[in-house]
Amino acid sequence: MTAIANDQQLTAAREARERYRAGEVVPTSGIAHGLVQANLISVPADWAFDVLLYAQRNPKACPVLEVLEAGSFEPSLAPGADLRTDIPAYRVWRDGVLTEEVADATAIWEEHPDLVSFLIGCSFTFEAGLVDAGIEIRHQSLRRNVPMYRTSEQCAPAGRLTGELVVSMRPIPANRVADAVRISGRYPAVHGAPVHVGDPASLGIADLSQPDFGDAPEVREGEIPVFWACGVTPQAAIMASKPPFALTHAPGHMFITDVPDAAYMA
Amino acid sequence: MTAIANDQQLTAAREARERYRAGEVVPTSGIAHGLVQANLISVPADWAFDVLLYAQRNPKACPVLEVLEAGSFEPSLAPGADLRTDIPAYRVWRDGVLTEEVADATAIWEEHPDLVSFLIGCSFTFEAGLVDAGIEIRHQSLRRNVPMYRTSEQCAPAGRLTGELVVSMRPIPANRVADAVRISGRYPAVHGAPVHVGDPASLGIADLSQPDFGDAPEVREGEIPVFWACGVTPQAAIMASKPPFALTHAPGHMFITDVPDAAYMA
Repeated sequence: MTAIANDQQLTAAREARERYRAGEVVPTSGIAHGLVQANLISVPADWAFDVLLYAQRNPKACPVLEVLEAGSFEPSLAPGADLRTDIPAYRVWRDGVLTEEVADATAIWEEHPDLVSFLIGCSFTFEAGLVDAGIEIRHQSLRRNVPMYRTSEQCAPAGRLTGELVVSMRPIPANRVADAVRISGRYPAVHGAPVHVGDPASLGIADLSQPDFGDAPEVREGEIPVFWACGVTPQAAIMASKPPFALTHAPGHMFITDVPDAAYMA
Repeated sequence: MTAIANDQQLTAAREARERYRAGEVVPTSGIAHGLVQANLISVPADWAFDVLLYAQRNPKACPVLEVLEAGSFEPSLAPGADLRTDIPAYRVWRDGVLTEEVADATAIWEEHPDLVSFLIGCSFTFEAGLVDAGIEIRHQSLRRNVPMYRTSEQCAPAGRLTGELVVSMRPIPANRVADAVRISGRYPAVHGAPVHVGDPASLGIADLSQPDFGDAPEVREGEIPVFWACGVTPQAAIMASKPPFALTHAPGHMFITDVPDAAYMA
C-alpha cells in the first residue's frame, strides 16, 4: 500500500533523529507515533549474502525493509538521514563479541567503509495500532525498554549464520489477546502476528523477569504474556556465528523512518 | 500457513517430474492442480547477493520461495527432486545471451558446480484458485503456454542487476476481473494481485498478439487483458545486465513442488 506520513509525524521523526545525532540515548518506543521503526545490522560486504539469506529464511524474525549497498548510509526510507549517527545507540561486534556500545558510529564506518546495511522491521511499528485500539503498551506506560528474550527455538541456518529466535514480550489482558493478534497480523512486514501466546517455558524462557535484552516487564493479574518475533534475532546470530565484524542498533534503540505504518499494512 | 498436499497431488507432481527427467518437454500450466510451481534462476556464487537483493527489491515480480546454497540441487520444497533434471526445459545464458535450450542441465552443472539456485513464485500457483472459482484460464483451454511480455516499467536495480518488469497476461471476462484480483491477491508470495488491468499500451506493450515469451493469446469480446508480475523478470535482468553465466527454466516450463498453494495463502 502507498501511504504518506503527515507533516506532524515527519517533524517528530526528524526532530528525534536530530536529537539522537546530537547524542541523546533513549529507547524509541512511542516516538513519532505511526511511523515505522527499524532494526539495523551492518556487515562487511562478503557477509551480506549470508545475512540476506538468513532474513529470507526467517522472514518473521527478520523482515527486510531496505538493504543499503556497500558503503551507503542514507536510507531511502528516510531521505537525508544518516545511518551512522541517527540511531540513539549502536553496538559493535567483533568475532561475535559485543565490544563497544556507542552513540555515534562515524568512526566505526571509517574503519569499515564497505558495510552493507539491513533495515529490518520492528514490532514498535504495530504498537501504534495496539494503542489506537485501546491496548496498553506496558513498557511505554512505565517508560522502560521492551523486554526481549533469547529462546530455545532455532532459526533456519543460512550460509555461515545460525542462531536462535529472539522474541519481544508484551503483557496483554486476556480479553484483548485476540485483538492484539488480529491487529499485529495486519503488518506481516514488521513481524506480524505473535509467534507464541501464554507459555514462556515452551520457548525455553525460564524467568520472565530476567529478559536477555531491554528492561524487566510487569505482568499484572489477568494478563497473558504475548511473544512476537524480534528484530534483535540477527544479533543472536552474530553471537552464535561470530562474523569478524558487525554493527547493529542497541536493542530498543531503533532507526525511525519517514514511512507510515500503513505503508506496510497487508 | 502450514498445509500438506494430498497423496493424489503428490503422485501427480512426482510423475510429472519423472516424465520431465526422462525428457518430456511441455508447459506445466495445469499440471498437479493445487501445487505450487516455481521459476528457476541459478547463478555463480559471486552473483548470488545481487540476485537475492534484486528479488528483495522487486518482491512482486521475484517472490523468493527457496534459495539453495552453492552446489545444492535438491530443494526442500520437493525432497528427492533434482533441479538439474526435473524441469521440462532449461535456458542457458552466457554474458546475457541465450545460447542453449536443454531438457537436462546435468552437464551445465558439471561446468558450473558452484551455482546458487533461486526458486521464485509463479502465477500458475493461483491459476488453480481461479479455475476453482469458475474462471477459465484460456491458455490452459487452448493447451498453449501463457503469453508473457517485457514492459516499459523498470525494476528497482540491485548491485549489478537492472532490467524491466515482465508480466504474464490472462484474458478475464469483465464481470470476473474483480474476482480474479481478489483470488490472486490471497497469494502475495506468488505474485499476488495483478500489477495492471486493461491497458497494454501503458505497459509499453504495442501488440498483445506478439508476446515476448510463450504463445499468442486469444482475447474474446467482453474480456479484459489482466497482467500479473511474472517470474521471468529475472531473465530480463540477465539479458540487460549480462552476468557471465546463468541457468534458468524455459518460460512456462516450471519446477513443480510438493507444496500446496494453500501454504502460501496470506
